[in-house]
Amino acid sequence: MVYYKKDRLYLNRLQLEKLVKKYGSPVYVYDLDGILQRLEEFQVAFENNVHVHYALKANSNPVILKAFKKAGIGIDTVSWGEVLLALKAGFKPNEIIFSGVGKSTEEIKAAVKRGLYQINIESPQELERVGKTAKKYKKIARVAFRINPDVNPQTHPYITTGFRENKFGMDTSFLPELKNILKKYPRNLELQGLTLHIGSQLLEHKSICEAIEKTIHIYKNFLNEGYPMKTFDVGGGIGIPYDGGVATSLKEYGSAVMKLLKPLGCTILSEPGRILVGPFGVLLTEVEYIKRSPSQNFAIVNTGMHHLIRPALYGAQHRIWPLKRRHEAEKYSYDVVGPICESSDFLGKHIEVHGLAQGDLLAILDAGAYGYSMANFYNARKLPKEIVIANGKAAVSPVSSVFKYSLP
Amino acid sequence: MVYYKKDRLYLNRLQLEKLVKKYGSPVYVYDLDGILQRLEEFQVAFENNVHVHYALKANSNPVILKAFKKAGIGIDTVSWGEVLLALKAGFKPNEIIFSGVGKSTEEIKAAVKRGLYQINIESPQELERVGKTAKKYKKIARVAFRINPDVNPQTHPYITTGFRENKFGMDTSFLPELKNILKKYPRNLELQGLTLHIGSQLLEHKSICEAIEKTIHIYKNFLNEGYPMKTFDVGGGIGIPYDGGVATSLKEYGSAVMKLLKPLGCTILSEPGRILVGPFGVLLTEVEYIKRSPSQNFAIVNTGMHHLIRPALYGAQHRIWPLKRRHEAEKYSYDVVGPICESSDFLGKHIEVHGLAQGDLLAILDAGAYGYSMANFYNARKLPKEIVIANGKAAVSPVSSVFKYSLP
Repeated sequence: MVYYKKDRLYLNRLQLEKLVKKYGSPVYVYDLDGILQRLEEFQVAFENNVHVHYALKANSNPVILKAFKKAGIGIDTVSWGEVLLALKAGFKPNEIIFSGVGKSTEEIKAAVKRGLYQINIESPQELERVGKTAKKYKKIARVAFRINPDVNPQTHPYITTGFRENKFGMDTSFLPELKNILKKYPRNLELQGLTLHIGSQLLEHKSICEAIEKTIHIYKNFLNEGYPMKTFDVGGGIGIPYDGGVATSLKEYGSAVMKLLKPLGCTILSEPGRILVGPFGVLLTEVEYIKRSPSQNFAIVNTGMHHLIRPALYGAQHRIWPLKRRHEAEKYSYDVVGPICESSDFLGKHIEVHGLAQGDLLAILDAGAYGYSMANFYNARKLPKEIVIANGKAAVSPVSSVFKYSLP
Repeated sequence: MVYYKKDRLYLNRLQLEKLVKKYGSPVYVYDLDGILQRLEEFQVAFENNVHVHYALKANSNPVILKAFKKAGIGIDTVSWGEVLLALKAGFKPNEIIFSGVGKSTEEIKAAVKRGLYQINIESPQELERVGKTAKKYKKIARVAFRINPDVNPQTHPYITTGFRENKFGMDTSFLPELKNILKKYPRNLELQGLTLHIGSQLLEHKSICEAIEKTIHIYKNFLNEGYPMKTFDVGGGIGIPYDGGVATSLKEYGSAVMKLLKPLGCTILSEPGRILVGPFGVLLTEVEYIKRSPSQNFAIVNTGMHHLIRPALYGAQHRIWPLKRRHEAEKYSYDVVGPICESSDFLGKHIEVHGLAQGDLLAILDAGAYGYSMANFYNARKLPKEIVIANGKAAVSPVSSVFKYSLP
């Protein structure tokens, strides 16, 4: 997490101003030491009884992926491109969960042939496709059914996923059809568990626990009917307080989940993303122009929605702090906006800063998740560099190879 | 524009189903013949008295850019990356307008050294930067001031740009400061015009005309004060009816603008984007899964917000039509959604189609503008191919080289 020391902003003991001087801006900076410490806290909260599969979609930086592999956890992927990134980072096929609502025939073929740890099933047609493919290649596909528990998490509608009106998961009305498909492919489909994911950026865990409670009886029914159930995947979704407020208590979350699931004797899977990486990334930017119009002040910076689309897409409010804090100068309210040619291109509105000037540097906080991974090339602008701080030392990270992959 | 013939969907005499069979999906298909015809209509609407500068940000496909160059028009860019794409497509520096609110020092240096036709100025600090740079390199920079006329176009707030509370343009309170900077660099800054752009996707031209009327007296004042004014840039922003309704009359728009500006004796510049390319592109996709839940039917397709973000970002409603029209089967309402792991990933809601099934093909209409150019690699998914139909023949287009550029 960032902090001020003598009015200079620091991340993991490094002065961010010095990093920009060395590496330029805009630039994403990740604190890998902080990320790994958070992972440990997460595991401790579950008394080390949880199998963490990091949700790669949150941040696919190759240095971070390799560090997660080294830390001994698994990974959650949502496309064959992500599987390839995971394999490249050193993950073994049996450490990879394959999620996602729209897996193509090619993707399923690849997943079945490589023998991934678990394929999370989102629809009867998908189960049929997996069964058919596994039969064709004489493989056993281990699957888990994603249950839509129809609970309402308190989050942005765009990142709610466990509601009935939602494309994700299956409610109990799907079960007879799913069982028929399992029976059709007895030697090729192995139902090993259930999976849940009710939404993203959840700031309380009650709705997750409610969803688990609603799903446990389905799990038990499958067990009683003789299915070789062993995994209960509670998904991810734990949020971070972008306003700097009180964070979700991981300990309480872990305890609550453990209390519900320990009696089942199952392997507890968890797919955290944002909570592990979000708070440990900042996007650093330089003020290109200050523009004071009669109705509004603007700080036009050298990053924007093409690098961090969360404010435009979700109305996310990231804190924006100057790398060098001033006290003496007057405080103004600014809209911090980017160079992209549309009004959705803002990073923050009504941000109050003392004496902001052209050339000043700003940090957009909590940009470690769903920042770089959602970036684009709109207006033909380049992607920022990524810097990773590990063991207190900063280094430029290689670029993720998402652009160049092909199916095996 | 697309049309049905014997229940098969066509674009420019080609059956789209056949294109998918040949090239796969998802795929963007552009009708270049339609685009060039639309350009001609646009020019005729202004009695050929307009200098069109195509807004490259709408669609930077290299085949389309080359065709526009061949058609003799100029180009409007908003980053040095876009300038390089334009140069690569054959445009000369004096055919290029450089717009955008956040031009960096490096970009301005490059623009000044290459002698672009016009730099559109968005703030006094930018004018100062341009003047200083031009002086340093002993160049004359031709500039136009972007006026914010404070009119309220009826469009989505994200693509409104001419309102006072907006980051774009400068209102009259900026003029004294701007004149002081011009005086500071008499041999390096040449004020040649004014420019306007009040928003995007405008379905009526009254607000544009209102903005022009509000700006003409500023132009005249500059003329009277001896500035070498010659260009009046009316910007772009004319929209297209995504619901298939009546299109803006280009003829009425052209006549209205001509009536206002002809008496000035200036060069009329226009920067259309969407109106030229939007209706002539479709995004073709295959249904991976049909999922009927008790509360909602979903067609999960192999494209999504990573390829076309307009529905998620602006709530845009594109028509979605099947490539093969059925009559006999039952009609259902579907949410057409993509494979990306969040609920914002939809292409259309409550789309009614007869007997839609797994493997069926759909066309998302009016996807020629702000489709591919805003695409990203979220969830590590690939970009679609682009096909261009020219002279009635389809061919795969080379990929835009936005990813690999460096400042000169």
